[in-house]
Amino acid sequence: MTKSALQIARAAYQPKLPKALKGAVKVKEGEPTQSVADQEAIKALFPNTYGMPLIQFVEGESVNMPAINVGVILSGGQAPGGHNVISGLFDGIKALNKDSKLYGFILGPGGLVDHNYMELTSDIIDEYRNTGGFDIIGSGRTKLEKEEQFDKGLEIIKELGIKALVIIGGDDSNTNACVLAEYYAAKNCGVQVIGCPKTIDGDLKNEMIETSFGFDTACKTYSEVIGNIQRDCNSARKYWHFIKLMGRSASHIALECALQVQPNVCIVSEEVEAKNMSLDDVVTYIAQVVANRAAQGNNFGTVLIPEGLIEFIPAMKRLIAELNDFLAANASEFALIKKSHQREYIISKLSKENSEIYASLPEGVARQLTLDRDPHGNVQVSLIETEKLLSDMVAVKLAQWKEEGKYVGKFAAQHHFFGYEGRCAAPSNFDADYCYSLGYTASMLIANGKTGYMSSVRNTTAPAEEWIAGGVPITMMMNMERRHGEMKPVIQKALVKLDGAPFKAFAAQRERWAVETDYVYPGPIQYFGPTEVCDQATKTLQLEQGK
Amino acid sequence: MTKSALQIARAAYQPKLPKALKGAVKVKEGEPTQSVADQEAIKALFPNTYGMPLIQFVEGESVNMPAINVGVILSGGQAPGGHNVISGLFDGIKALNKDSKLYGFILGPGGLVDHNYMELTSDIIDEYRNTGGFDIIGSGRTKLEKEEQFDKGLEIIKELGIKALVIIGGDDSNTNACVLAEYYAAKNCGVQVIGCPKTIDGDLKNEMIETSFGFDTACKTYSEVIGNIQRDCNSARKYWHFIKLMGRSASHIALECALQVQPNVCIVSEEVEAKNMSLDDVVTYIAQVVANRAAQGNNFGTVLIPEGLIEFIPAMKRLIAELNDFLAANASEFALIKKSHQREYIISKLSKENSEIYASLPEGVARQLTLDRDPHGNVQVSLIETEKLLSDMVAVKLAQWKEEGKYVGKFAAQHHFFGYEGRCAAPSNFDADYCYSLGYTASMLIANGKTGYMSSVRNTTAPAEEWIAGGVPITMMMNMERRHGEMKPVIQKALVKLDGAPFKAFAAQRERWAVETDYVYPGPIQYFGPTEVCDQATKTLQLEQGK
Repeated sequence: MTKSALQIARAAYQPKLPKALKGAVKVKEGEPTQSVADQEAIKALFPNTYGMPLIQFVEGESVNMPAINVGVILSGGQAPGGHNVISGLFDGIKALNKDSKLYGFILGPGGLVDHNYMELTSDIIDEYRNTGGFDIIGSGRTKLEKEEQFDKGLEIIKELGIKALVIIGGDDSNTNACVLAEYYAAKNCGVQVIGCPKTIDGDLKNEMIETSFGFDTACKTYSEVIGNIQRDCNSARKYWHFIKLMGRSASHIALECALQVQPNVCIVSEEVEAKNMSLDDVVTYIAQVVANRAAQGNNFGTVLIPEGLIEFIPAMKRLIAELNDFLAANASEFALIKKSHQREYIISKLSKENSEIYASLPEGVARQLTLDRDPHGNVQVSLIETEKLLSDMVAVKLAQWKEEGKYVGKFAAQHHFFGYEGRCAAPSNFDADYCYSLGYTASMLIANGKTGYMSSVRNTTAPAEEWIAGGVPITMMMNMERRHGEMKPVIQKALVKLDGAPFKAFAAQRERWAVETDYVYPGPIQYFGPTEVCDQATKTLQLEQGK
Repeated sequence: MTKSALQIARAAYQPKLPKALKGAVKVKEGEPTQSVADQEAIKALFPNTYGMPLIQFVEGESVNMPAINVGVILSGGQAPGGHNVISGLFDGIKALNKDSKLYGFILGPGGLVDHNYMELTSDIIDEYRNTGGFDIIGSGRTKLEKEEQFDKGLEIIKELGIKALVIIGGDDSNTNACVLAEYYAAKNCGVQVIGCPKTIDGDLKNEMIETSFGFDTACKTYSEVIGNIQRDCNSARKYWHFIKLMGRSASHIALECALQVQPNVCIVSEEVEAKNMSLDDVVTYIAQVVANRAAQGNNFGTVLIPEGLIEFIPAMKRLIAELNDFLAANASEFALIKKSHQREYIISKLSKENSEIYASLPEGVARQLTLDRDPHGNVQVSLIETEKLLSDMVAVKLAQWKEEGKYVGKFAAQHHFFGYEGRCAAPSNFDADYCYSLGYTASMLIANGKTGYMSSVRNTTAPAEEWIAGGVPITMMMNMERRHGEMKPVIQKALVKLDGAPFKAFAAQRERWAVETDYVYPGPIQYFGPTEVCDQATKTLQLEQGK
């Protein structure tokens, strides 16, 4: 492995731990917990892991612990700091007993089912400390949902003498971790399961989980390049940059980046849905900002767009639903229509409302909606280049306004999509410390015999010393939701709250940002400089914590 | 102006200067110079600025200098460090005499012609020290070529009592700076003109100009995000990432990034041209690397592509030339052809060789070649999404190989284009120091009555202390080239040399990089850490200087 100078320098970084984890710990139990909703249903589904107390670790007496074997799994999309969760877990179980062993299951949950694993020795761990990526053992998207999978996993768990599994993943993976914990508990297998909150999207959080790891680094990396683009935009003064940001289910990333860089426009999907805005409303809003700036001679600007926007526009959701149903029912007839007549054909077949919306879409997008369908026949919304869709429609709107004398200016657009650029960035000091602490905390939950818990580290806007480490019963975060036609227990996804401090801070300033050019240029993540540069939490977290 | 924590911290950075510039300087003249080619022609065109000696600044005696007024212009695309050239120039003329004044012409060379300017006071300069962007006075692409422009400029120069103009730009802008210097010298206007070597593309360099400013920071920023993508690629193990990098005229950026990140494939346009490779040759090369990796179970990888590739493929260049001619001559006939028949029509009209190449292109690209033409009727090559073109064609080739049993694997691609992300990044320590030194050197050239010189700072892989500051007659870098049908004196563009150390280092390792996964993750530019992390020059510069 060839290493960059920064990789070599960062390898020596010792992540910070909460004070309580620096020596021996003991468990301080809180009150029994309830799920956030649907208590009866959740309780019935999780008789062995429901209602457990919150846990906090405090300083304790040193006791001799037996060696333990632990398995770890990385689940789903990459997030900066995953390697530090694993190194924290490793150091934690080694601190308990130097003969403890850590096994990594390869390429995600599938590795458990397929018995694909490796022992993570200190030589291997040392190669990955404070690095980005999930490449130490890889990740995967296999869902652990079926009892056959659980039983197959149990075979290798028994073979390796594994006492506990740590599953590092997002809301779905943690839901599955809890189902697994319940299953093993019900069968009395003696296998614990602990979850860790991972996702750059920032949508796995609640009162006890202040933030999911990776959100900090990913947003800072995106803000770096968006800031650079804004500086370019403000120097060249001739382009509107339409910038799409990863995150389909929630707009936390776009919102955090907006708070960091102060763009002219940021669309927040949750607001679009709450206000029942149409695609045309969104386009009109952007076009109006463009026109207002043009009136001042400023034919340039920046627009941030969350990846999931289209699916949050109620009218688009209805159009896509009808298209899915119609194309599924009429696949063979549609296949016979000549390409040049498909658009007319679709327009003639849809309900009036949806037909009008479909007819208003630029040709490329209309084609994507009917041609690029997944193996289940569904429209692949993720393939829609929302940034181009919006800029095309804004251009059409402005041309119309120009004819009507309502707009005088030039409009030229550039497009960007940032996602893969940030998911595997080397973790910021915050994520390096937070992840290491989450992993270390997981080892303490294991040592104390806990299962069905998520590792929790709180008070994260204070210095790491003062962080509070503990565990939260996963069932506490659950409610019942309809998934694929069935009611399922799932961890509630945290969307952007329109009455939350981050959105309110944004909403209070966006009108000024739209008119003025008050771009902020955050620059690249720094590891070695002054603490105000290197150790700040996200604006989202600071605002949520009242900082 | 709202500032990020990093902006505030960086404002305090004092860029390093070569030892000789730290106190009073005197001029050490070298031998008279010759242009790199076409000496007689260049000499005839530049009777007043040809043959001047190389200049080096050495420590001298302090003398009282009168106050001078200087004008500065940013020309063309942004490059990190432009603000530091200006602050170095400012500090230089103020050190000569505190009553000296600096005027900035707004939005590029057009500001000189239109008399659009502002005085750059120390309050303004202080706001922009060590920041990216050209927003202090903006930039523009107006070319200073005509005598009316020169005369119009002279009016404002006289009005403001400006003794010298500093033009910060690429090869064309510096060529024009020299034409302007010659014009003012011939007319005995008493106005000096000094150039500064700017371009992220890295194609303005020669024996006396080791590198153009901005190349260092831009390449490091691109390498950061490419490294992050590679880490993601190596974690998810399911995508081939096709990454296009800015730089139409030369492949220095792609080559430098390849040396930094060790991708599986990097295409170098100059090699494609030298080997007379066809588009199919390039596609076959990439597809073979994909197939070889797939044979080892690795269905992922990275491909770096220079923006200008298409124009370097001799066969494509011939196709585009014939298309331009044909469409110009047959515009009205072509306009009547139905969209669905345009492709056939073009195929039927072109010469056999070009017709076959055209027929082999994916539909979207074929359409771009005939529809998206500029106001002069020319194909807009810059709109071609080369990264998608190549991945589409690789997919077709692999599908064919699969049928023939020569390829077993899955191929899925992601696409990226990086350009605006790096042009305005905050300058690395190298660019901050180099640019400040270039600007300071320009002030010394002015003080010593020089005109038609480019500011030169050499020995740049040594510590800044040991850098050598001086001036190079711009005519020395010129030769005669055909531009728009006319022979013109221009600065020779520096393409990637296939017998140069950077390319040879790449060529020696690329076969291993193609097979193995030995990605390097450079991470974000650091300003405050250990010197081996913060103060390294580009690999290109180190290799060229034999380091």
